[in-house]
Amino acid sequence: MSRTGRRPGGPDTRDRILQVARTRFASRGYDAISLRSIATEAEVDPALVIHYFGSKEGLFVAAAGLPDSLPELFAQLGQLPREEFVQALVLGYLHLGDSDASRNPVIALVRSAVSNERAATMLREFLTAELLPVIARFTRQPDARLRSALIIAHLMGIAMLRHVLRVEPIAKATPDEIARLAVPVIEQYLREG
Amino acid sequence: MSRTGRRPGGPDTRDRILQVARTRFASRGYDAISLRSIATEAEVDPALVIHYFGSKEGLFVAAAGLPDSLPELFAQLGQLPREEFVQALVLGYLHLGDSDASRNPVIALVRSAVSNERAATMLREFLTAELLPVIARFTRQPDARLRSALIIAHLMGIAMLRHVLRVEPIAKATPDEIARLAVPVIEQYLREG
Repeated sequence: MSRTGRRPGGPDTRDRILQVARTRFASRGYDAISLRSIATEAEVDPALVIHYFGSKEGLFVAAAGLPDSLPELFAQLGQLPREEFVQALVLGYLHLGDSDASRNPVIALVRSAVSNERAATMLREFLTAELLPVIARFTRQPDARLRSALIIAHLMGIAMLRHVLRVEPIAKATPDEIARLAVPVIEQYLREG
Repeated sequence: MSRTGRRPGGPDTRDRILQVARTRFASRGYDAISLRSIATEAEVDPALVIHYFGSKEGLFVAAAGLPDSLPELFAQLGQLPREEFVQALVLGYLHLGDSDASRNPVIALVRSAVSNERAATMLREFLTAELLPVIARFTRQPDARLRSALIIAHLMGIAMLRHVLRVEPIAKATPDEIARLAVPVIEQYLREG
């Protein structure tokens, strides 16, 4: 151990950071926990946490078992021209859910949230802090946040019927078949006037 | 006990029928179980089951703890003129979910379905047999069932964000505030051409 009491990097260190993050996010939620406080508890430099995970968002995504590509996907979505945004959001989301049906990360999160109040808090705060603002920027309506939450609701409901309840024909439809119907409908939420 | 081995009616009989129904629906699903087979197992005349619950749908609704008014609500929805249907569906659903937040029947069903494969089967078959066809009759599109399933997905997602994750501003919005945005969007799914 170094003079400052901080441990050097390495696979064990990365795992230790993740373990601390899981415990802290689950006990206090996403908002209340800073990247710095997780670094302190894991006895590492905050710069090392940034090095491994990029941001608090990236750390959450890794701790929750979501794909590493998610923060980059959110960032890319935010940069899209408005007429491409919903299509990219819906297809990105459907492919995320379909990527590995046996270990579907969206469903794993929803399952924990339904059975566990702390997991629900964690997911709520993550969606509110990281996904909702990305969507809300695509409309100038005064109720942009309610519109964005309704879009998230529709996407989450699609995953519920597709992967949890497996209601046909939504369970066997391809992402393109779903997107063809859902994209123009969801776009309505972001339309002006 | 009467000569036929069938027991007379009464509160105990009603409870016994419900108990048999819960066990049978949970073990074999909604489709595979007939009202008659539940009557036989509960040792009552099928007419008594009809007397208490109206139909297999009514028996399921009572066994699942859903409001008794649900079969009537579905029947009324099916009779509405098309331009009133989605508004009535969305508001009926939101008031159902809000009627008793502490013992929300929609959420109780979703919670069981997420954690229990048999409950998922039961809810899937009930939605597919009783709600999906009511919605699908309001459009002549060839993919009417996929459109209807997407509408159910949106409604279920609203309940998830509103009551399970409690994402703001959807959790505190009134049914009217949600309906004002969601009804015209959902109506798109049923539009021709």
